[in-house]
Amino acid sequence: MQNKIQGVYLVTDRPLCIHHRLEDVVRLSATGGVSLVQLREKEATSREFLELAIHLKKILSPFQVPLLINDRVDLCLASGADGVHLGQSDLPWYVARKLLGPKAIIGLSIETKEDWETLQKEDPSPNLDYLAVSPVFDTKTKTNTKTAWGLAGVRWLREKTNLPIVAIGGIHLDNAKDVIEAGANSLAVVSAICSANDPKEATIALKKLF
Amino acid sequence: MQNKIQGVYLVTDRPLCIHHRLEDVVRLSATGGVSLVQLREKEATSREFLELAIHLKKILSPFQVPLLINDRVDLCLASGADGVHLGQSDLPWYVARKLLGPKAIIGLSIETKEDWETLQKEDPSPNLDYLAVSPVFDTKTKTNTKTAWGLAGVRWLREKTNLPIVAIGGIHLDNAKDVIEAGANSLAVVSAICSANDPKEATIALKKLF
Repeated sequence: MQNKIQGVYLVTDRPLCIHHRLEDVVRLSATGGVSLVQLREKEATSREFLELAIHLKKILSPFQVPLLINDRVDLCLASGADGVHLGQSDLPWYVARKLLGPKAIIGLSIETKEDWETLQKEDPSPNLDYLAVSPVFDTKTKTNTKTAWGLAGVRWLREKTNLPIVAIGGIHLDNAKDVIEAGANSLAVVSAICSANDPKEATIALKKLF
Repeated sequence: MQNKIQGVYLVTDRPLCIHHRLEDVVRLSATGGVSLVQLREKEATSREFLELAIHLKKILSPFQVPLLINDRVDLCLASGADGVHLGQSDLPWYVARKLLGPKAIIGLSIETKEDWETLQKEDPSPNLDYLAVSPVFDTKTKTNTKTAWGLAGVRWLREKTNLPIVAIGGIHLDNAKDVIEAGANSLAVVSAICSANDPKEATIALKKLF
């Protein structure tokens, strides 16, 4: 599935879906050619999160767009989603790999250079599908993030790894091209699609940059 | 493991561990003869929750006291815990059973008579290890609970099911005997052990009532 880690990557945020319901944002984005969708829910109960995951999986299947679950390996298993996105305070990636098996898509956020060094010590060739440089730019969407990497950070990680790089944080049409040129294989966006008047057109516009 | 669902059942709550650290409360309670421990963490990250689960599992193994995880099936799988306790807004019990297999201990909170009716419709002989009557009495420990069942509620569920019944909510030494007489196989307590000056003695005192 490594070829799926390219292009436009949608990370969901229900409160930011101001013009359309989440499921419509996801459907429209898939119509516009999104490559991957990550369901992120920070307030939902496990039951609500699971039901939403099952619903989005049904929406995305006809488009063959993989669905990743933020953090929750159990909800990935229970919903039939394609994998998980892990932050540094989630389950260790090798534990998730063990529970999900070899076919699951597993991505890991790298928030600091220390995170990269830790990963190298754990495994110089980690069985991961991508690394997420997080955050590339400062963002209002997520407030618990570390110092922004900037374009120099994307270039730094690009020199270190052959794994696909997903860039996330403060990415929009005006700066997206620079992030790709710095070495990102995929651009993860939240508000640029979730809050768009036309999520399909917003996806198409971003996709054209690749 | 059905015989484990009897006696004193400790549900953890770190903020209520005022005299001892959580791990010491758990160790002392095991020394006092606790039958089962449920790790409940509402604020921890997945990583912290997992590390705590692995730590408590190590503490409890020599006592052969099972460790259950509240809600998180993935953390149960990853920590080697013995099962999960599920509330009505957690994963459906049959999904948890599928993910955890036949040997896991799975308990389900029944908060209303409607919850019982739903369970009966799902499966007249559900593959569960216990039902938790929640809450038996009003409690300050958990604020999102439904109307208290009272002793009449315990008697009502006792007539309906042959599954072990765990009573939870507002149980302390003064009312524990009544709850057992109403039909509870096990008494789940939080503050009565977590906040006790002597968690071992608090466990022994409750255990004597059986």
